[in-house]
Amino acid sequence: MSDYTRVALDAMGGDNAPACNVEGALQAVAENEKLKVYLVGKEEEIGKCLEGKDYDKERLIVVNATEIIENAEPPVMAIRKKKDSSIVKAMNMVKEGECDAYVSAGSTGATLVGGQVVVGRIKGVERAPLAPLIPTMDGVALLIDCGANVDARPSMLVQFAKMGTIYMENVVGIKNPKVAILNIGAEEDKGNALVKETFPLLNACPDINFIGSIEARDIPSGYADIIVCDAFVGNVVLKLYEGLGMALIAKIKGGMMSSLRSKIGALLVKPALKKTLKTFDATEYGGAPMLGLNGLVVKTHGSSKPKEIKNTLIQCVAFNEQKISEKIKAAISIDNE
Amino acid sequence: MSDYTRVALDAMGGDNAPACNVEGALQAVAENEKLKVYLVGKEEEIGKCLEGKDYDKERLIVVNATEIIENAEPPVMAIRKKKDSSIVKAMNMVKEGECDAYVSAGSTGATLVGGQVVVGRIKGVERAPLAPLIPTMDGVALLIDCGANVDARPSMLVQFAKMGTIYMENVVGIKNPKVAILNIGAEEDKGNALVKETFPLLNACPDINFIGSIEARDIPSGYADIIVCDAFVGNVVLKLYEGLGMALIAKIKGGMMSSLRSKIGALLVKPALKKTLKTFDATEYGGAPMLGLNGLVVKTHGSSKPKEIKNTLIQCVAFNEQKISEKIKAAISIDNE
Repeated sequence: MSDYTRVALDAMGGDNAPACNVEGALQAVAENEKLKVYLVGKEEEIGKCLEGKDYDKERLIVVNATEIIENAEPPVMAIRKKKDSSIVKAMNMVKEGECDAYVSAGSTGATLVGGQVVVGRIKGVERAPLAPLIPTMDGVALLIDCGANVDARPSMLVQFAKMGTIYMENVVGIKNPKVAILNIGAEEDKGNALVKETFPLLNACPDINFIGSIEARDIPSGYADIIVCDAFVGNVVLKLYEGLGMALIAKIKGGMMSSLRSKIGALLVKPALKKTLKTFDATEYGGAPMLGLNGLVVKTHGSSKPKEIKNTLIQCVAFNEQKISEKIKAAISIDNE
Repeated sequence: MSDYTRVALDAMGGDNAPACNVEGALQAVAENEKLKVYLVGKEEEIGKCLEGKDYDKERLIVVNATEIIENAEPPVMAIRKKKDSSIVKAMNMVKEGECDAYVSAGSTGATLVGGQVVVGRIKGVERAPLAPLIPTMDGVALLIDCGANVDARPSMLVQFAKMGTIYMENVVGIKNPKVAILNIGAEEDKGNALVKETFPLLNACPDINFIGSIEARDIPSGYADIIVCDAFVGNVVLKLYEGLGMALIAKIKGGMMSSLRSKIGALLVKPALKKTLKTFDATEYGGAPMLGLNGLVVKTHGSSKPKEIKNTLIQCVAFNEQKISEKIKAAISIDNE
């Protein structure tokens, strides 16, 4: 095993690729000496972004890939056909053990499909969830699953709870994290068929700190550290978080600009407000890991700026050093004995 | 048929009952001459609230009910046992044709159960959805269903779309309202089994203006007028709307109080901000109707103030005069011929 955490970065993914990705990688290797980043993508374009930059050439390496998977492409077909795309090539480096982690700001669909079919699931893991951190009043919560696993089964949700616990304890640093199942009421008899079947299984699970149901109203308050749900509902929560946040902030800005008096006030509150709202900005927390795979796969926002790319790359070091995949393997294999 | 719209108000329901409910009823009958309100609940308590008030005794009538259904009570049992409760008695007045509508700020569960078993569904209606209006950037959208119908079938969602269209056109006054199905992507092949099966049915439905999928991110922008989903997901959206709105406003207030400079600014922006945020406050829009029943059943917030009670009571007049139940009956019976 390498002393470095080796990350294959999809240099071509995201709205601002490759410039933003290259810049994020430069900042990350400068900040963290344990990090080795492979910039996977069109050699020539990446080379231009690196021109005149000073960096450790042992720890920032360009790997040529001639194709690009676009966001609009059907992911299954794209992964199968575009063997020389930045996504498939970077994923293969994880599969072959040349890298410990994969990071992309590109197609979510291709990353989710590639994670399952190229990198592959840990034996015993039924589905690999995508688990972003979402901001709460006093920190963050892990929303697991927001990926492609719609119509999940109860046993999958139990695995999500276990994998989420390992991640929050070891990477985010929350001891004995509180796990709740997303529901439409606090009582045990509330919910749809999936929730009703999953609830007693989570309740009987010895290796998680299950606190029962959480209503969506209580997510932002930080009532739970890990929120378990099927990917359809998780996706709705994640997207509404983004959309409602933007709408409210637009409303507030509009209100502040509505009179001379409030315009003057707005100038005075702006710096304090900006600082506060930053803590409620999902991009501050790096990318969303896909858990339960033979290696780390991380999806960052398509609109990622260098700072988010950098944060995500550095996050990979903790994931790798804490041996999260090994810990998940151990936890799941006990269940299957 | 009476010239009045006759509403049975659960005087005992809600956090501030009966005082708030009585006050709202007084305001409503004063404001709208077509309204007749029956205050159903403990005669003596209601009488105290009415003491010294000047009102039209022909249009504000007290009906004694000695029992109260609490929020925590299992609703099915409560509806069956507490025959002299304000909820059951008020519902029976609608069932017997003595009233056109029922309004309660009390137990949601008891109202949903009572709506189905006491008031009863229109023939052909599979399930009666609860459909609150939620605020958007430039108006409101109908979120249908947020009730008790978890694990819905595609045919139910199609009926929700039709009933929602009739309500938005005739009560809220939006011509040819845009209907979308809540989904996790814009493409037709995205979604869980329910959404995938429902999508083509909505697409083939001639009497609605179906615009396809809506992602949760686009709900606050007002992209659709009617958002169709099963009650589990609808409930998550509704509750997250409330919770996230409160959390963001608390964050903003906290930010504004963080320095002397921002405190001064806060004083200046406060009036403008208050006015703007009011448009994003769900309580401004009255209660949520339960559609598809033999009469109108409306649930308002437990925390309703007199203004929301008043708005909800007046909303019943439009519902009744526009003959919404008859229109739903006609629309559904065509399907069943």
